[in-house]
Amino acid sequence: MSRVSVKRKVLRENDRIAEELRARFRARNVLTLNLISSPGAGKTSLLEQTLRRFPAGRKTAVLTGDIETDNDAKRLEPFGFPVKQITTGGSCHLDAQMVERGLSSLGAEDVDVLFIENIGNLVCPASFDLGEACKIVVLSVAEGDDKPLKYPATFVRSALVVINKTDLLPYVSFDMSRARDNAKRVHPGVDIIEVSCTTGQGIDEWLRWIEKRLAAARKTAPAPKD
Amino acid sequence: MSRVSVKRKVLRENDRIAEELRARFRARNVLTLNLISSPGAGKTSLLEQTLRRFPAGRKTAVLTGDIETDNDAKRLEPFGFPVKQITTGGSCHLDAQMVERGLSSLGAEDVDVLFIENIGNLVCPASFDLGEACKIVVLSVAEGDDKPLKYPATFVRSALVVINKTDLLPYVSFDMSRARDNAKRVHPGVDIIEVSCTTGQGIDEWLRWIEKRLAAARKTAPAPKD
Repeated sequence: MSRVSVKRKVLRENDRIAEELRARFRARNVLTLNLISSPGAGKTSLLEQTLRRFPAGRKTAVLTGDIETDNDAKRLEPFGFPVKQITTGGSCHLDAQMVERGLSSLGAEDVDVLFIENIGNLVCPASFDLGEACKIVVLSVAEGDDKPLKYPATFVRSALVVINKTDLLPYVSFDMSRARDNAKRVHPGVDIIEVSCTTGQGIDEWLRWIEKRLAAARKTAPAPKD
Repeated sequence: MSRVSVKRKVLRENDRIAEELRARFRARNVLTLNLISSPGAGKTSLLEQTLRRFPAGRKTAVLTGDIETDNDAKRLEPFGFPVKQITTGGSCHLDAQMVERGLSSLGAEDVDVLFIENIGNLVCPASFDLGEACKIVVLSVAEGDDKPLKYPATFVRSALVVINKTDLLPYVSFDMSRARDNAKRVHPGVDIIEVSCTTGQGIDEWLRWIEKRLAAARKTAPAPKD
């Protein structure tokens, strides 16, 4: 079997498990968000800000992926929500089977929002459906405004670009309007939110975006069975 | 054939071409440096600083990889050295065959130093030998001091860590001594150089590191044939 056909088979098998996961999430009204970014763009910091400020009564859980270490889970556990670290031991992306196993050991599927924090990699995670409602790409201003053009697959498949570390704008050569144009060029319908996880700027807009997605998902969800 | 055995076969074939490249580089006394980093850590900026300040008479060439766009080649061409963009069209890493083809169309193998700028990805490029004398990992302080522990494979295989964007240190929570400790923990023998491609700080040390490597490579090179 050739390299290409093995890759296709792997992706087909991944898609099958991802569709099962998607059906499970829909049946339980779980909004699943798959966060993708380069290493150190601020996915964990965004989750810290989110868990800190989540509205009372909002149920959430986190699956957080890394190649090595459980540092991210340790950072997120103090907020009191269920968190499960998935350590891939070398794999450059999360796949649907890892999410399925992570969910079993998390034991917390009856939540409103499930965050999946992918491996820090702006390339490979985009190819693996995890059954999420949408992918979200986090881009740090320190990375440069050209990244949507250089890594288009991730931006095309994401519903939202979170442009993080806006507090660094005075110190880096990042042109915000060019970054927004580049993101819209590769994905005209994409939403864009500017945040700083250091100052908290823009986090309210991000929380409102999640609430809107929750409301939209509930409108289209099947009526609960008696 | 299973996924694992196909991957092994691909890596074996890559290693075979890489060894041929390595022999070619050695025979011609070319020091080949494979630059690896996350997207936006500053590989191209480091090359800009390098080409701008290279000692007179030092012959060099650049192969620069990206998934899409030839932006990096456009940034490097003005320095007057041969530059060839390799656009992978989706692949998350350069492989030895891409380098072989890039070299053919570059048409400039009689150089002292060949820089290969890999795809912006801190994971996958580490697995693919390109026939280089050494891998160099560029880490931006904006990414965080924990990255050596989270992406150990790249740090273990690199001879040098260039810690870039030190001009941002006052504005980010990056502990330099912790970063250095983490790098040494995963790779005790690794060299570390701190630079800022914005202010130029540390670039002289980086240039001296290259000159030292050049001198060492020449000492061990086979005597030229009459």
